[in-house]
Amino acid sequence: MKTILVDMDGVLANTNQHFIDYEYKRNGNQILWENISGLLEAEAFPNFLEDVNSKGFFRTVPVIENAVKVLKYLNEKYNVLIVSSATEFPNSLTEKAEWLMEHFPFISWKQMIFCGRKDFIIGDIMIDDHPKNLNLFSGQRILFSQPHNANSKVENSVRVSGWDDIMNIL
Amino acid sequence: MKTILVDMDGVLANTNQHFIDYEYKRNGNQILWENISGLLEAEAFPNFLEDVNSKGFFRTVPVIENAVKVLKYLNEKYNVLIVSSATEFPNSLTEKAEWLMEHFPFISWKQMIFCGRKDFIIGDIMIDDHPKNLNLFSGQRILFSQPHNANSKVENSVRVSGWDDIMNIL
Repeated sequence: MKTILVDMDGVLANTNQHFIDYEYKRNGNQILWENISGLLEAEAFPNFLEDVNSKGFFRTVPVIENAVKVLKYLNEKYNVLIVSSATEFPNSLTEKAEWLMEHFPFISWKQMIFCGRKDFIIGDIMIDDHPKNLNLFSGQRILFSQPHNANSKVENSVRVSGWDDIMNIL
Repeated sequence: MKTILVDMDGVLANTNQHFIDYEYKRNGNQILWENISGLLEAEAFPNFLEDVNSKGFFRTVPVIENAVKVLKYLNEKYNVLIVSSATEFPNSLTEKAEWLMEHFPFISWKQMIFCGRKDFIIGDIMIDDHPKNLNLFSGQRILFSQPHNANSKVENSVRVSGWDDIMNIL
């Protein structure tokens, strides 16, 4: 059975939408998706650091469309491991585990990995929105489209625009 | 530079002593180290599950003797990754990251991995007190002595009784 490494932020979790919502609630500043194309999150969202360090941010992030349905399907067919860069923000760790347990109850704690870098985790397929993670991965690379990677090219990768695309590939 | 995977509970953290202290404070029951030889923690400590799920348990565990000194030395010579089975107890995740940052400030968040199983993490050397982790590891195996592994044999491993032994080997 092949092993798939699945990222959280920007792949399972709609972190961009959450930043946009936090910013709007904070000061009525409506950031538009089309205006953040090509920008890193820290560039796109003026209160990025405050948000990621605030209690509850990662616990309340919305789920990306169709992620539950497709991950459930993949979980029957593959060895799914959820691999999230999270240790930079210690508060996020417990919140991310609880979030997965709530929204993806078919994923067990044995399938979760929270780390600082992903190049010491092995697998056959990686689904990630960050080119830096895919570029260090030797297996099949799936780039999940997000505004920040709009202009990125990752060698030997397939770009997908959402979970339905992944269902068609895997 | 070789990569060393270093476990937390029972290797960096004196979790057994912490269970003993919690039990004594709870009801005056003094558990002796010599009486828990060969027992898993869940067998040795009657309130194991309550303790590991209680807020603050992992944040306040004492550091194992000489761990700071020797890990600092290893951190200059090797690529050190701290790899801890932690996702079973979501509360422990944030506490473990904060504990490492307090006691081992020379270890960065990039060097931390919190997971449910360790067989998808690669490295050259593993220091662990759990035979099940070492048995699935293909590199150099170092078994850190703890009461629960007193009767365990791990093929191709070196058994150490503390951090000074590790300093002599690595």
